[in-house]
Amino acid sequence: MFSTKMTVFLVLLLQSCIVLASDPDPLHDYCIPIPEFSSIFPSCKNSSLVTVEDFVYSGIKNPGDFKNTGFASIPVNSAVFPGLHTLGMSFVRADFEAGGINVPHYHPRATETAFVLEGRVYSGFVDSSNRVFARVLEKGEVMVFPRGLVHFQMNVGDSPASILGSFNSQNPGSVKIPNVMFGSSIKEEVLMKAFGLNDKEVHKLRKRFVPQ
Amino acid sequence: MFSTKMTVFLVLLLQSCIVLASDPDPLHDYCIPIPEFSSIFPSCKNSSLVTVEDFVYSGIKNPGDFKNTGFASIPVNSAVFPGLHTLGMSFVRADFEAGGINVPHYHPRATETAFVLEGRVYSGFVDSSNRVFARVLEKGEVMVFPRGLVHFQMNVGDSPASILGSFNSQNPGSVKIPNVMFGSSIKEEVLMKAFGLNDKEVHKLRKRFVPQ
Amino acid sequence: MFSTKMTVFLVLLLQSCIVLASDPDPLHDYCIPIPEFSSIFPSCKNSSLVTVEDFVYSGIKNPGDFKNTGFASIPVNSAVFPGLHTLGMSFVRADFEAGGINVPHYHPRATETAFVLEGRVYSGFVDSSNRVFARVLEKGEVMVFPRGLVHFQMNVGDSPASILGSFNSQNPGSVKIPNVMFGSSIKEEVLMKAFGLNDKEVHKLRKRFVPQ
Amino acid sequence: MFSTKMTVFLVLLLQSCIVLASDPDPLHDYCIPIPEFSSIFPSCKNSSLVTVEDFVYSGIKNPGDFKNTGFASIPVNSAVFPGLHTLGMSFVRADFEAGGINVPHYHPRATETAFVLEGRVYSGFVDSSNRVFARVLEKGEVMVFPRGLVHFQMNVGDSPASILGSFNSQNPGSVKIPNVMFGSSIKEEVLMKAFGLNDKEVHKLRKRFVPQ
Amino acid sequence: MFSTKMTVFLVLLLQSCIVLASDPDPLHDYCIPIPEFSSIFPSCKNSSLVTVEDFVYSGIKNPGDFKNTGFASIPVNSAVFPGLHTLGMSFVRADFEAGGINVPHYHPRATETAFVLEGRVYSGFVDSSNRVFARVLEKGEVMVFPRGLVHFQMNVGDSPASILGSFNSQNPGSVKIPNVMFGSSIKEEVLMKAFGLNDKEVHKLRKRFVPQ
Amino acid sequence: MFSTKMTVFLVLLLQSCIVLASDPDPLHDYCIPIPEFSSIFPSCKNSSLVTVEDFVYSGIKNPGDFKNTGFASIPVNSAVFPGLHTLGMSFVRADFEAGGINVPHYHPRATETAFVLEGRVYSGFVDSSNRVFARVLEKGEVMVFPRGLVHFQMNVGDSPASILGSFNSQNPGSVKIPNVMFGSSIKEEVLMKAFGLNDKEVHKLRKRFVPQ
Repeated sequence: MFSTKMTVFLVLLLQSCIVLASDPDPLHDYCIPIPEFSSIFPSCKNSSLVTVEDFVYSGIKNPGDFKNTGFASIPVNSAVFPGLHTLGMSFVRADFEAGGINVPHYHPRATETAFVLEGRVYSGFVDSSNRVFARVLEKGEVMVFPRGLVHFQMNVGDSPASILGSFNSQNPGSVKIPNVMFGSSIKEEVLMKAFGLNDKEVHKLRKRFVPQ
Repeated sequence: MFSTKMTVFLVLLLQSCIVLASDPDPLHDYCIPIPEFSSIFPSCKNSSLVTVEDFVYSGIKNPGDFKNTGFASIPVNSAVFPGLHTLGMSFVRADFEAGGINVPHYHPRATETAFVLEGRVYSGFVDSSNRVFARVLEKGEVMVFPRGLVHFQMNVGDSPASILGSFNSQNPGSVKIPNVMFGSSIKEEVLMKAFGLNDKEVHKLRKRFVPQ
Repeated sequence: MFSTKMTVFLVLLLQSCIVLASDPDPLHDYCIPIPEFSSIFPSCKNSSLVTVEDFVYSGIKNPGDFKNTGFASIPVNSAVFPGLHTLGMSFVRADFEAGGINVPHYHPRATETAFVLEGRVYSGFVDSSNRVFARVLEKGEVMVFPRGLVHFQMNVGDSPASILGSFNSQNPGSVKIPNVMFGSSIKEEVLMKAFGLNDKEVHKLRKRFVPQ
Repeated sequence: MFSTKMTVFLVLLLQSCIVLASDPDPLHDYCIPIPEFSSIFPSCKNSSLVTVEDFVYSGIKNPGDFKNTGFASIPVNSAVFPGLHTLGMSFVRADFEAGGINVPHYHPRATETAFVLEGRVYSGFVDSSNRVFARVLEKGEVMVFPRGLVHFQMNVGDSPASILGSFNSQNPGSVKIPNVMFGSSIKEEVLMKAFGLNDKEVHKLRKRFVPQ
Repeated sequence: MFSTKMTVFLVLLLQSCIVLASDPDPLHDYCIPIPEFSSIFPSCKNSSLVTVEDFVYSGIKNPGDFKNTGFASIPVNSAVFPGLHTLGMSFVRADFEAGGINVPHYHPRATETAFVLEGRVYSGFVDSSNRVFARVLEKGEVMVFPRGLVHFQMNVGDSPASILGSFNSQNPGSVKIPNVMFGSSIKEEVLMKAFGLNDKEVHKLRKRFVPQ
Repeated sequence: MFSTKMTVFLVLLLQSCIVLASDPDPLHDYCIPIPEFSSIFPSCKNSSLVTVEDFVYSGIKNPGDFKNTGFASIPVNSAVFPGLHTLGMSFVRADFEAGGINVPHYHPRATETAFVLEGRVYSGFVDSSNRVFARVLEKGEVMVFPRGLVHFQMNVGDSPASILGSFNSQNPGSVKIPNVMFGSSIKEEVLMKAFGLNDKEVHKLRKRFVPQ
């Protein structure tokens, strides 16, 4: 009996990703997904198995790996830190070498408040009428990036800079503009018409962003 | 008594924009803002003054004005069609000349369902891992663009094409990628680093998109 | 070990319907339920298995089957078009023969915007103080029906009419007034008292609406 | 200066109804609208002016006025009991003479839990597939009516009955089916076609429900 | 094949608690969890298996068991009354002997409306600026306790009192202040500093509230 | 004409507090309340008057004023930092002298993520079954406090400690347990019965917390 339908079923399940939930009011004090199977069924651990470690995250004490843009980030959402599940929050640590840049990007599902832990960071966002709000932030200053709006950050000091960003979604998502445009397989013709570029120019841009 | 504080107050008010509200469950059957003053106070018209015309929109029978991209759109949100106020929906009519393009853009506050009224439209979106989902839609087909994800449309037929888009927000917003990047006053250095372009290339792109 | 509890369990599961979710902010870019098992577990397909076809619906190019009221409708919710899952929208195609009617009904979980694709349609809704807002809509006009309010449509032109309705819920539901009253098994006494009818009159009405 | 625009403005405002808000998470501990002007501006009373009386409602100690259906109800929403404002709840007291009936109706914006204070009440609702769930409730029993679904109650005991209904919206709304159909000015032709009645039958029904 | 991973999996599942969901708009008319397995998978019963009994609760006709505080309560949330699942409401019956007290507590996820069924009850809440709103409620009066604020009730009459509380969440939760402070294992030093008590005083308080 | 009703009106308005709004999806990119009048009308500044300074907060570069508990906090909600208005987030800087304590408290309207900027902080929360989850956090660690649950923090290091807390509400509120219990005017009898204390003990506790 289990050999046919059930097998297919389990195979399908093991290929499936985390079940959606939503960011509104939680229905329980908390819900720690069962670690190994959280990707299959959205069950909460029996509360007797929950420990304080489920609610503490220790992975952002140090910077992440720097990319060639002089930027390193460690996004911490509910997939990485299960204690956030159903609680409507997540965060990110971002580090910048001198001159390092966090390229223009936006979070489709959250507002961000960014606190400067260290350094001087030129920081800004663009509203939907294409107006830019930007300035240099000093250590201890906080900037808010409204949900879904494009924003960017650049270390304009001489020493490393560091930022803690917080989000009001357990999974805010992140869309990097250069990558979504030139690092995806959007038809060349669309890009040429959209940016007014010829095919050579588009090729050149794509080379940089498409994983080779 | 009214001459000082009150005057300042009114002046400020007359400069203020529509008061925010939110897209969740409405608290009344409907709420038609008082026309002339909706931008100041979010009061609903007395229901005895409400008529059927408040709930009907007649301004998308014909295409809007075409731009040089061969594209015309008439977005209809609650600012244009007050009957939508508090009801959590809005819509847009989009028309395409042959080869016309709706450049890559996203709506920060809504999912869109796009119904092809006429023509053959290459249509797609990019998810946050930069994967593209696109194909040609025929008349009568519908594509869904998830909230906050970049999408685009291009008329690949020989005759005009037309689309009706619907949104689950009374004010979805729209961020056009080429314009937000090269039509805004984002610092040149940010753009150079983000796209790997030199200053000449950035200048050239900006010329096209910055209103002169 | 699997033969007892597990069997009962699977049997129960196979009888269960789609798991609830809710219409608020999505937690992922999208979530396509695993087709065959969506009715059992609300798992999302692994994104590598998702294709553009998951986001396109092609089943409303033509009218549905006409009933004796001269009306045909094809409601497209997340059960029919899984790509809508978690995205908070759905839609319906409605077609009317000359004189055809979409009887008074309401959607318990959504506002509707109705766009006239073709024809002249008398269209209206009733608010909770029993006030009617109705008029004839021409091709290209849009009427909004606030969430949960009774509305109706009737083709008053000489030729077929067609409407595209959009909803801000992935499963708006639909309650047809004549059917919920006289096509259900509500106690006769309740109906007699509610409408001030005698038993013969109720019998006659029921005959029409109760499936025989 | 105030004589022109300002006068028009005030006149319009004084005609306007309560400003919409919504039922989601409150942003303050509470918000008691300023009594006389709540219909104009949604301002909260200064907290120093708030008293315990703002949070207590004393108007349902006794039944309301009975109608000819042997039914009396006192709906208490945020318009009547301002302390409910922004808190997402409201309630109703319903009293039934022997045989009295609360005609089939629904609440567009709330679920209801109905607790029988006194008596024996036949109570039920109809789901959107026209299935009826109904039975007699005894004193102390509670029935839940899911949001937006048609429900009804009838005193089947020999003595008066009484119910306390609670809602998860500060303004649930109420649509009575007989009244919305036959007590509104829906076009006769729509009603004839919808219910399969001739004009005489519709006239007769309307006579009962249209305020004369 | 099922013997390893699958067994672990089932064991884990059988230890897991109810899957979270949320209190926003429901996506179906209703969703009755499958009784025996509701704790594992959040599947809804097939609607053909749903009966009127799923929507009626009969367990609060009489008071619950009285504690030594002269207080008895029967909280009815979706775990106890599955028909409430996804419908955003729940309720509680509270009974008081003369002098009985419902100690200061709050509900982290809901507003409460409390209706006095019988007796005279001193009733109040404290806002976040530590201001108290309290008075004696008579039979038939209703007090609203805003979401998340501390409130309390005490029978100040000579005879038993009884209250029906309703909540706008299917699982409001309840945090009793004396118990959360002195009945939990919060470090002694924290309590001493927080309340300005010495260790003896803390010990004495704890003795009363820690289950021995 | 303005001298009577209008004067009363303005007086009332000037006494009124900030108008409620809610934390769900914003309806605009942002909404900066008009500074001087935000407490009266919830109008947004005309966008041409909005500057980058509206979105940056500079007031938490240094600790706030320390209380006798060795604790200093600067809560930054939308009343203090108007740029947060409608964006669903806020934050707090908390500083601790050696041994300093943030007494047990909870936020009725938000989850908190607390990041240790400096020092070693014993940190914990209590769930609604009175179970404590606590441990010492090092610099760079983050703990999540689920919405509405009681939590506390104590500097257990030898040097000052500092924390940045973020919230998913523009106005989370804060209820300090010792103050809400013994610093408010809750009737003595309620406190005696709730905590099992005699009147002397209650007097002693109150002395500490009631502002004298």
